[in-house]
Amino acid sequence: MEFVKGNTVSPKGFLAGGAQVGIKKGKEDMALIISKVPANAAGVFTTNVVKAAPVLWDIKNIENKISGIVANSGNANACTGEKGLKDAEDTAEKLAKNIGVNKENILVCSTGVIGVNLPMDAVLSGVDKVYALVGDSFEKGENAAKAIMTTDTVKKTVCIKENIGGKEITLAGMAKGSGMINPNMATMLCFITTDAAISRKLLDRALKEAVLDTFNMICVDGDMSTNDTVLVLANGCAENKEITEEDADYEAFKATLFAVMKDLAVKCAKDGEGATKLIEAKALGVKNKEEARKIALSVVSSNLLKAAIFGEDANWGRALCAMGYSGADFDPMKVTIVFKSEKGEITLMDEGVPIVFDEDKAATILSADKINIDMYLNQGESEATAWGCDLTYEYVKINGDYRS
Amino acid sequence: MEFVKGNTVSPKGFLAGGAQVGIKKGKEDMALIISKVPANAAGVFTTNVVKAAPVLWDIKNIENKISGIVANSGNANACTGEKGLKDAEDTAEKLAKNIGVNKENILVCSTGVIGVNLPMDAVLSGVDKVYALVGDSFEKGENAAKAIMTTDTVKKTVCIKENIGGKEITLAGMAKGSGMINPNMATMLCFITTDAAISRKLLDRALKEAVLDTFNMICVDGDMSTNDTVLVLANGCAENKEITEEDADYEAFKATLFAVMKDLAVKCAKDGEGATKLIEAKALGVKNKEEARKIALSVVSSNLLKAAIFGEDANWGRALCAMGYSGADFDPMKVTIVFKSEKGEITLMDEGVPIVFDEDKAATILSADKINIDMYLNQGESEATAWGCDLTYEYVKINGDYRS
Repeated sequence: MEFVKGNTVSPKGFLAGGAQVGIKKGKEDMALIISKVPANAAGVFTTNVVKAAPVLWDIKNIENKISGIVANSGNANACTGEKGLKDAEDTAEKLAKNIGVNKENILVCSTGVIGVNLPMDAVLSGVDKVYALVGDSFEKGENAAKAIMTTDTVKKTVCIKENIGGKEITLAGMAKGSGMINPNMATMLCFITTDAAISRKLLDRALKEAVLDTFNMICVDGDMSTNDTVLVLANGCAENKEITEEDADYEAFKATLFAVMKDLAVKCAKDGEGATKLIEAKALGVKNKEEARKIALSVVSSNLLKAAIFGEDANWGRALCAMGYSGADFDPMKVTIVFKSEKGEITLMDEGVPIVFDEDKAATILSADKINIDMYLNQGESEATAWGCDLTYEYVKINGDYRS
Repeated sequence: MEFVKGNTVSPKGFLAGGAQVGIKKGKEDMALIISKVPANAAGVFTTNVVKAAPVLWDIKNIENKISGIVANSGNANACTGEKGLKDAEDTAEKLAKNIGVNKENILVCSTGVIGVNLPMDAVLSGVDKVYALVGDSFEKGENAAKAIMTTDTVKKTVCIKENIGGKEITLAGMAKGSGMINPNMATMLCFITTDAAISRKLLDRALKEAVLDTFNMICVDGDMSTNDTVLVLANGCAENKEITEEDADYEAFKATLFAVMKDLAVKCAKDGEGATKLIEAKALGVKNKEEARKIALSVVSSNLLKAAIFGEDANWGRALCAMGYSGADFDPMKVTIVFKSEKGEITLMDEGVPIVFDEDKAATILSADKINIDMYLNQGESEATAWGCDLTYEYVKINGDYRS
């Protein structure tokens, strides 16, 4: 497995592009991804009862062969009534006509403000405009990654090569995260392309397994969006023998997909709205995997802990408190808590006993950009990791006047 | 039922006091409540797996006759190992000796920083000091209410009189809220006194019913504390015929207890850390009570919605989004959402259809200190109300350097 420079156009047979089409002011706001060959697709979608119109469209069509994806930022097409559903369908149809396929072979994703209907003139002319611009150069893939950003401060892309069945296959992805990111993926969009040949069934299985320890283990603010979507397209252009069984090729594919998704998920957590620090919380020695996930996620989701990390305050009691309300059952008297960073590490609680610690040393450790919180439960063999960010003035500022 | 000026000493047979004893710098930090007659007691405690030492002590002793409560601020005696348990017991014993009862007749509550052992010299001498000061004047009750404050900005007390069984009975309470307040009551302490005569069993039942729609329906930051406690003492000094059945007297008592608890719960929500506005979210027309509670609570718990209210932005989509991930099952296409305040009201979504609204009018409505969010589900008969506050720069500031 090798991380290389690249983006969604790096796997064979994919085109992409992005441009400003007038959905939001002064910024790129539409991206297209096209597979020259109809691709197998799989998706994971928000579990929110309130699902945006494009999510409903994609759920209906995800089992079809897919030729393209239209993604826009600036407007989520969520809470938009019957008109929103029609708008998502019309958007798909517009790209379908350009490519020469049916609308059911097109997926649609939106992110941005909720409760306002899409400006369909801009969207439909935009699809034509961006379709005229798509290509397979590195720059085209970057344009697409830029066009899905909302309050993100950096583009998020990754590309990995791996040998599978004697062929070099490539997996690449782009994501947008920022606010509202939560377990079960809140306004997070992620698009993954690969030239691997893999059956739809196994593609779907690999995606759903990988999401559990990647996108479902990040939290920015605990809000779960109406629009969260992870899509993967596999077009088979690498010409490996199609993966149809859970054999060694499948395991290699799944590990590579996991690496792509973990890379993008951590980038989303790190670039949470207003964030200055990445928090990586690891629960170890837990009695089972599910409880380990609950504990790790609860800690990176705690406003109090997040604010303390922003303040560079070693308030480990807030970590233990968040472990306690995670829903996991454990004995706090056995817990050891360690805070660490590139600047050192410090044990704050040792098997249930609070340790009097050197505040200066703790402050130095917490001055780093990435803070690790290791929680040793000492009551089992399972572990899990979650990622989040600190809670800052800037988060409040961004979300106090997002629509304006 | 009549709201009157008063506090925990207003019911007959109670004494209280509060003073600075050296647990925290420059502020009152210990309160005592004494019942001259051993009282029936009931309590509701945090559901966090990590329970502070005083919570464990109280759970063990709540069924005993209770003669006094020691409450301190500045240190939560949580995550403090075996020593913390011993400290809570020693604190109870100290007050017990002053009164001349057994330590098992004393309850203990702590709030403040987690993970640091109590300064027991200050605590034990403090119990003697405050015991020497207790009395039944209005001022003494106010001193007690002041001594339990942490980052609260105002004292929270209430007093209600009601006729039960031909006698005038009084119920009064004091609470501290502020940060970490969450469903299932996070670092929230509430002490209720009454001179009503009521069996322990029915006192317990009334408390547990009332908490569901009062303290369990407020949220400041989603963190559930290790220390949350609501205690009620009923000493029978009003000399009403003891309430031992679910008769009219019981219903009158329960309604009065509910009013006391609702008053204090709303005061806690309004005084959330850094809050500038009270948010009251009501879910109506829901298929059952439990789902109505989930929906209302989810909305006041959403960081995104809270930040939007701070920014006076009518971002109703965030309310619908939070309804959607509340865990309740409903059809979003039937939902109507209304924002209102003393300055007017505005419908933002009408049975699933977003309404184009006047931004200036919305801004005027949202400039008030109390914002109501009414959500009409139109799919049942149940309703529930939750209270929260906006998310502000000040919240981040307070929690970024709480320990220092």
